[in-house]
Amino acid sequence: MTSYKTLKKIFHDAALSSDIAGILHWDMSTMMPKNSRENRAEQLAYLSKIRHQLISSKNVGKLIDLAKSEQLDTANQSNLREMEREYIISSSLPSELVEKLSSASAKCEGVWEEARKKSDFKIVAPHLEELVKLSKEESLILADRLQCSPYEALINKFEPQSKEKDIKNIFEKLEYFLVPLIDQIIEKQSNEKLISISNLMTTKQQREIGLYLMNAIGFDFSRGRLDISQHPFCGGAYQDIRITTRYNENDPFSSLEGIMHETGHAIYELNLPEQWKYQPAGQSRGMAMHESQSLLIEMQITRSKPFKKFLSHILKNKFDLKNECWDVDNIYKIGTRVNKSFIRVESDEVTYPLHIILRFNLEQKIFNDEIKINDIPELWNYEYKKLFNKEVDIDSNGCLQDVHWYAGLFGYFPTYSLGALTAAQLASQLRLDIVNLDDQVENGDFKELLQWLKSNVHSKASLYSSNEILQQVTNSNLNAKYFEDYIKNRYL
Amino acid sequence: MTSYKTLKKIFHDAALSSDIAGILHWDMSTMMPKNSRENRAEQLAYLSKIRHQLISSKNVGKLIDLAKSEQLDTANQSNLREMEREYIISSSLPSELVEKLSSASAKCEGVWEEARKKSDFKIVAPHLEELVKLSKEESLILADRLQCSPYEALINKFEPQSKEKDIKNIFEKLEYFLVPLIDQIIEKQSNEKLISISNLMTTKQQREIGLYLMNAIGFDFSRGRLDISQHPFCGGAYQDIRITTRYNENDPFSSLEGIMHETGHAIYELNLPEQWKYQPAGQSRGMAMHESQSLLIEMQITRSKPFKKFLSHILKNKFDLKNECWDVDNIYKIGTRVNKSFIRVESDEVTYPLHIILRFNLEQKIFNDEIKINDIPELWNYEYKKLFNKEVDIDSNGCLQDVHWYAGLFGYFPTYSLGALTAAQLASQLRLDIVNLDDQVENGDFKELLQWLKSNVHSKASLYSSNEILQQVTNSNLNAKYFEDYIKNRYL
Repeated sequence: MTSYKTLKKIFHDAALSSDIAGILHWDMSTMMPKNSRENRAEQLAYLSKIRHQLISSKNVGKLIDLAKSEQLDTANQSNLREMEREYIISSSLPSELVEKLSSASAKCEGVWEEARKKSDFKIVAPHLEELVKLSKEESLILADRLQCSPYEALINKFEPQSKEKDIKNIFEKLEYFLVPLIDQIIEKQSNEKLISISNLMTTKQQREIGLYLMNAIGFDFSRGRLDISQHPFCGGAYQDIRITTRYNENDPFSSLEGIMHETGHAIYELNLPEQWKYQPAGQSRGMAMHESQSLLIEMQITRSKPFKKFLSHILKNKFDLKNECWDVDNIYKIGTRVNKSFIRVESDEVTYPLHIILRFNLEQKIFNDEIKINDIPELWNYEYKKLFNKEVDIDSNGCLQDVHWYAGLFGYFPTYSLGALTAAQLASQLRLDIVNLDDQVENGDFKELLQWLKSNVHSKASLYSSNEILQQVTNSNLNAKYFEDYIKNRYL
Repeated sequence: MTSYKTLKKIFHDAALSSDIAGILHWDMSTMMPKNSRENRAEQLAYLSKIRHQLISSKNVGKLIDLAKSEQLDTANQSNLREMEREYIISSSLPSELVEKLSSASAKCEGVWEEARKKSDFKIVAPHLEELVKLSKEESLILADRLQCSPYEALINKFEPQSKEKDIKNIFEKLEYFLVPLIDQIIEKQSNEKLISISNLMTTKQQREIGLYLMNAIGFDFSRGRLDISQHPFCGGAYQDIRITTRYNENDPFSSLEGIMHETGHAIYELNLPEQWKYQPAGQSRGMAMHESQSLLIEMQITRSKPFKKFLSHILKNKFDLKNECWDVDNIYKIGTRVNKSFIRVESDEVTYPLHIILRFNLEQKIFNDEIKINDIPELWNYEYKKLFNKEVDIDSNGCLQDVHWYAGLFGYFPTYSLGALTAAQLASQLRLDIVNLDDQVENGDFKELLQWLKSNVHSKASLYSSNEILQQVTNSNLNAKYFEDYIKNRYL
């Protein structure tokens, strides 16, 4: 057997153990009895250990070196490149550091919950300090192996081949454009009257409508499910994709839009190419590309006027919701309302990037050793004021709101906005390629849209980098101007 | 580290991989989208491979030999004995034979479904022939390692340390006693009038009542669940026990009694001793002891008059089911009705052992090379006629009714009746130890019953053999007379 074939077998087994963990994670969040948490953690740690042993062994390093001199076509070269990336990330870190990071994260996340509840940063500060110290160690080791800055190394764990400098440039343009625009939009919307939809759609109706929309958009229920969890997610295993939502009768569209968001993620996974099943090149591209697929469905499609026409029609005719609050104009306005929220996850698509820019700026400073942990609340509030021209009242509405840092997830935040920009860039080409997209969406016909996404993005899996995919589809690297045009077009 | 400690670590990991498979199996039967079957099979095969590699390596054999000369207390000696049993069973068979058995079983089971549907044994006969040939190879290898007869070796896979000769003796006594008794009971019951309960309890009510009864009997929902599957089972993982049922509005007690049966299995699992978590000695004893726990709850308790008093009371008062069909006498008669059914799974506790004796006799003949596969239908019908004095009409009501043989499960059937006899023997002591058991059951108070089961059976896990447990609790080896007394007492 060639070295490359041996590698394929090893990575196949590693993918199987990830898939098994995917089902266990889903079960943990949706079905598992509450006192099984500790044993489940042990099962998941065991699967991680198996996966780590498989892909980080010295033998894998040798096989990769040997495989480089074997005859491989372009696609298999991509697969080998992805194998090496996984090998580097997983073999570089000493196992004591991995264990320390894992236990410091678990500890810090627990304390964070209490700190957020009490809005008291001091409680969690020493734990965050320890976690940042360990994450810096991690970032230095990875930076050395990946030949990049420490912070860039962390971002690359989530979005491979992305450049800190490029992100910084893009975010600066975005900030420059959005800060004045937001006031303009809020001013414009201040005269619009909204009719409340609160408590006018039961949880049962929300679920039925959610299932109806998933089905309409092309989700294959013979290869996936919809369930309830506290934090919505898209998970599961290869060709067995499980999305979740939570229902709130006060805010029925939060579940519907959430379901559409997760459906975007799910359709990406379900359309990955079968011939690369269980291989690194057959996995979805990084978190930014993944988020672009959920945001394209949620923002570009579900919150568009044509979709609201379709939705209003089915609410009135299929689900017998006749109240005028379900009129097209009203639900469109609700879905495009802009507000300066303190809370990232409650914010709209226009202000959202500012929340991310704030976090990106602080993460850069943290990993360039420019700030002390104890200064984070003050710096957060300073940055928020600069971006939103508004004072943060309490830290639970500020630097304590998100779990990410306290769970050791540094470098993750930028991928949310990179995803939004990617979605806008792809959608601009999509609208050129499918000229009557609006008519199709209004009629609930998503076949051509889905086919476009499948052939331009989903089927490419990790055979190309995100930028290569953007180049192939739009003849351009990631560029903020598409997002700018899209936002101006929708909101001004 | 001592050899024994190393073994404990290896078997700990093996138990974790079994637990993970337990959750995946549960998911497959209850939640999994229908097109995920093939990928799930691959996940489960991967976990089996991991487990097999762990416990069947030559190194484990060496460690066991070394551990035998280490200083171990009695309990750890039991654990080592169980390790060796697992090692012998898993290391003896060449992996080609294991793979052949696995694929022949899968193939044969598929063809059996069709054969049963068409009631045509000929379709499946060549596949069964191949499977029996492979199972004979397996039985010869195991017999050599375990120093017993080939058929006994197969039974021992499911019920360790059981003897073919003892089972034969017990089953002969049972047959001698039951055959005339059954006609006597049927004659006696022929004058009893039953009021139908068909279509008088909705599926939703069945589920609610099932949950109520599980709760009453002491099932801990923070460590388990109740769901729906086509074939009811008790599965899951350590301290995360998941039982299933199916609902039928024509026959509402089939789900209620099924739920109580699986609850009996579940409570056994939930009460296993924590200090032996993930070790072989900490697992439930063989299938016969497991079945004794489900049958003790289902037959000895749930179908007793005192329980029916409790049930009738809650049906009328908690669930507002006022129809006279829910009167104590009627539901007691329904639960103790005796019929000569063709179908094992539809039969009552009195005729059930005859169904098992029939299968045991045929399995003995098969593994003693006394019969040809093509003669099975004729021999089945001959044995059925001898036991029930009734002619089998078609093979789907005869030798094609059960999946076991066609899935390669030879030696499993006897454990069902060994379980029933064990339940009766344990219950006879239970009634001596808890003198007012009937009053407690009638009042829905199961605390003392559960405590008795926990301390006499559950907490002993696999630290002792089934016969040792019976000796400790009842001062007697397994003896059919307890079952005889119990049946006579209830039915005559």
